[in-house]
Amino acid sequence: MPAQKPSIYIARVAEYNDGRAKHLDDYLAGEEPLEIRVNGSPFGLTFRTPGNDIELALGLLFSEGAISDRKEIIGIAEIPRDGEPSANGLEVTLEPTVQFEKERYVRGFTAGSACGVCGKRAIDDLRTRGLSAPESNSRFDPEILCSLPDKLREAQANFSRTGGLHAAALFDSKGKLLVLREDIGRHNAVDKVVGWSLQHDKLPLARQILLVSGRGGFEIVQKALAAGAPLLASVSAPSSLAVQLAREFDLTLIGFLRGRRFVVYSGERRVLMEPDAAENQEDQA
Amino acid sequence: MPAQKPSIYIARVAEYNDGRAKHLDDYLAGEEPLEIRVNGSPFGLTFRTPGNDIELALGLLFSEGAISDRKEIIGIAEIPRDGEPSANGLEVTLEPTVQFEKERYVRGFTAGSACGVCGKRAIDDLRTRGLSAPESNSRFDPEILCSLPDKLREAQANFSRTGGLHAAALFDSKGKLLVLREDIGRHNAVDKVVGWSLQHDKLPLARQILLVSGRGGFEIVQKALAAGAPLLASVSAPSSLAVQLAREFDLTLIGFLRGRRFVVYSGERRVLMEPDAAENQEDQA
Repeated sequence: MPAQKPSIYIARVAEYNDGRAKHLDDYLAGEEPLEIRVNGSPFGLTFRTPGNDIELALGLLFSEGAISDRKEIIGIAEIPRDGEPSANGLEVTLEPTVQFEKERYVRGFTAGSACGVCGKRAIDDLRTRGLSAPESNSRFDPEILCSLPDKLREAQANFSRTGGLHAAALFDSKGKLLVLREDIGRHNAVDKVVGWSLQHDKLPLARQILLVSGRGGFEIVQKALAAGAPLLASVSAPSSLAVQLAREFDLTLIGFLRGRRFVVYSGERRVLMEPDAAENQEDQA
Repeated sequence: MPAQKPSIYIARVAEYNDGRAKHLDDYLAGEEPLEIRVNGSPFGLTFRTPGNDIELALGLLFSEGAISDRKEIIGIAEIPRDGEPSANGLEVTLEPTVQFEKERYVRGFTAGSACGVCGKRAIDDLRTRGLSAPESNSRFDPEILCSLPDKLREAQANFSRTGGLHAAALFDSKGKLLVLREDIGRHNAVDKVVGWSLQHDKLPLARQILLVSGRGGFEIVQKALAAGAPLLASVSAPSSLAVQLAREFDLTLIGFLRGRRFVVYSGERRVLMEPDAAENQEDQA
């Protein structure tokens, strides 16, 4: 087996600070290409932070609908390069009974026939692919939600060193951290968490909270839906299509989770909130 | 022509703030899929914020090495869908003399044969593709660099409303803003700036500063190099591979550009910095 690539590097850099320059050693988040092949065909190439690569491959395959169960995988092996196994390539072999439509995985065309049409069509295509609303009537306590970003930051040992890694984490409804993954790419961090969940037979995530450190776009919501998570929270803003997709599939989508405040964009019924007294008066006025 | 899709939406949301909940209208950054086809073959699909779509397509084609000059394009048309042109699809037709290797644009495999190997190989492949060091001996004033993030924020009219858009901007060496583009995707914002530059015959960007609001990874550095920019600056952290690529190609790469401080990861000679007196003493001691 080849050596695992480092997830952190140290580089000599120059710092400019208020008119003065000096040299120092700085930490850098590792980034390397990872090629994923399925049954010998290209599935994708992603620039990721090395570490938990098998989780990443499994999560990506699952999120994109190429597999629905880890039992569909016979084996995962490193792709040899110049006769040596390479830490930057994984070959996934599926059960012969599993249909793998390699044509679907042409660059960027993962949303089926959504290409060149409206977001609504992209959403409909996900439904055709078999995605459905999370089967969960879990309710979540706002106070617990507000506690999550601090827990995420505390657990992000790498973050403070490089300042360059995104995080995705799973929490249970009491706010207990189940798994945290970091990556230079937001999507990769989520794929690693989904892959971990698949490996540990935790899918669908009917009672868990998926928290991401960056903003929530269409693809992050798609991954949360594929994993069956009832609640996706982010410290930043979601996009219009993320909100539209979350609403169509009854996913609880929370943004701007910071300090004692957050915004619920979809699926409000899963958040145990008391309405503001002033707002009620306003409604009655 | 179809109606331009909105770049900002308004949605009714619930806000939780310190124990109280109320409903309000919130701005959302628009996100829609854009399909790009070249000579009838799929080139890519990206989720982008609608607006400046032709710049985005041109910038992406240029950054990935599919075109090297805007004169290589005969026409750009919206892709019809159900008999109507669609605002979410662009068909690019190239001059018959331009070779378009459609096989290269399989999903994610844009770095040529870099798949499954080390970052060094990904870098070598860019060299094989024809990328070279920026032909620029421009020098940049640190005080001007420190002034850019504020100028970027001031110019980001959308940013304050949605909190969800990345920005990329070009400045001249005196710190004058030449163009600003926003997008839900960092890469798209950079592609729009490169596309604008191509349309205005400004490539290579031998004297300009490219500033991005997010972190700088391999692909952002690749786009800066393709555009010939001598200096890429970011308010956040670069990755290991971004730094490696910048050093190999003598691009000046700056990160953590905030307030009165920044870090120079590569190409220090283009930044007019005075060494710190204390550091000199240390070196001599």
